[in-house]
Amino acid sequence: MQKKSQILLNKINIFAYMIRIAIIGGGNIAHHLIRAFLPVPQVEIVELYARKPEQLSEFNTLPIAHSLNEMKAVDVAIVAVSDDAISIVSQQLNNARLVVHTSGSADLQSLENSQRKGVFYLLQSFSKAKEVDFSDVPFCLEAPNPDDFALLKTLAECIGSKIYAINSEQRRYLHVAAVFVNNFTNHLYKIGYDICNRYAVPFEVLHPLIGETAAKIQNLAPESAQTGPAKRNDEKTIQKHLNLLTQEQQEIYQLLTDSIRNGKKL
Amino acid sequence: MQKKSQILLNKINIFAYMIRIAIIGGGNIAHHLIRAFLPVPQVEIVELYARKPEQLSEFNTLPIAHSLNEMKAVDVAIVAVSDDAISIVSQQLNNARLVVHTSGSADLQSLENSQRKGVFYLLQSFSKAKEVDFSDVPFCLEAPNPDDFALLKTLAECIGSKIYAINSEQRRYLHVAAVFVNNFTNHLYKIGYDICNRYAVPFEVLHPLIGETAAKIQNLAPESAQTGPAKRNDEKTIQKHLNLLTQEQQEIYQLLTDSIRNGKKL
Repeated sequence: MQKKSQILLNKINIFAYMIRIAIIGGGNIAHHLIRAFLPVPQVEIVELYARKPEQLSEFNTLPIAHSLNEMKAVDVAIVAVSDDAISIVSQQLNNARLVVHTSGSADLQSLENSQRKGVFYLLQSFSKAKEVDFSDVPFCLEAPNPDDFALLKTLAECIGSKIYAINSEQRRYLHVAAVFVNNFTNHLYKIGYDICNRYAVPFEVLHPLIGETAAKIQNLAPESAQTGPAKRNDEKTIQKHLNLLTQEQQEIYQLLTDSIRNGKKL
Repeated sequence: MQKKSQILLNKINIFAYMIRIAIIGGGNIAHHLIRAFLPVPQVEIVELYARKPEQLSEFNTLPIAHSLNEMKAVDVAIVAVSDDAISIVSQQLNNARLVVHTSGSADLQSLENSQRKGVFYLLQSFSKAKEVDFSDVPFCLEAPNPDDFALLKTLAECIGSKIYAINSEQRRYLHVAAVFVNNFTNHLYKIGYDICNRYAVPFEVLHPLIGETAAKIQNLAPESAQTGPAKRNDEKTIQKHLNLLTQEQQEIYQLLTDSIRNGKKL
């Protein structure tokens, strides 16, 4: 436990001084973070690095490092690279007081720098072209050291507002949950799209239903929001539906219907 | 084919006269339709009917019929009852020029009135308590007779703006597509919720991702919007994820992952 005076002192330090950061990576997350931190007066982007420097051409007014192990001293180095590269990249970052990665699926321990470690995971689906509204992006932060956590929180608050403490175990599960509600949900949209397409129904007919389904669970637990033939055990409609589907679609229909029914029994 | 003068005449008739309607049913759809048509000057709600009249207590200033086969003459009787009741209800409606049902899964032929038939299907998920914005609800209309179709279109335009001609075959497929993008998607949300809940992660962390996933396909075909371990054939992450799940969740994860991968091969 820290003494109260010590905590206060840390807070004062954090607000009184510029937070000096480096951002490593040339992908979507790196780009969006650089763009977001650039206009923030409390944050100084000391240096950038990407394995392929041309990926950073958009930011040619900022200092670009030529090698990882010669990077300047910073408070936080944000490693926004692919999971497989986190280990090798972090090993070379000797001038950062705190090194954080941005991955949903990599543990804290995948960082192999000699200094302190943390995670700065943004749970949102990014594409390079589309502007990100960071006020709506959950920041999932982890740092074993409370001062480091406070620093990451201050950094996150400079660009966002939804900030959560999520440890490595929670993040593992959060990441697989995200696959269900994002990748798999999108695949169900694709099946809906394929069905519509085959029978000359414009997919846009389903857009409002898709929007409403997503909007509903902002206020209602998904189980309470459930409707449809599986929920009400309407075997006649289920059989009618199965007869309309391809074999692959049938398997998915049957498994999800069974799963909804199982849920009812619990 | 109708002559142009005839079509024009129909249009004039439709706009010059009040459309007289009856609404049959005491459930969600009947309630929302009654509320929507009530303030429309071009539409007169001549009578209502529900098997349990107390379901219509909210509308006690409107005429409530006591028996189906004594209902007054109307242009359109809207049968908003459960699929199983459409046949028996429609048989008794002898005073309606056009009888339509509101079901996504029942064929036109499930109507057994002696006069003309049609479908007035609203593709949205309704709950009694929540106000419906009809301007965002797709109206899926069907009527073999072109005059009837024009009448239904005029009626729909009184309360909505997204109007589609969808025949019985298309509606069958649209209905099963809706199960995928609504009921099954909601079930994936439930799995995400269960996973979060078990590891003390607030489900709201996933809300923005759920919103973004739904928003993305308003402008992008779902296949182009797909990301994640299945799409990029990231076997290592897939195995890590499978190890975190219950048996039932594993089956769903595996099947949807295989299906996303199959899609890639096409």
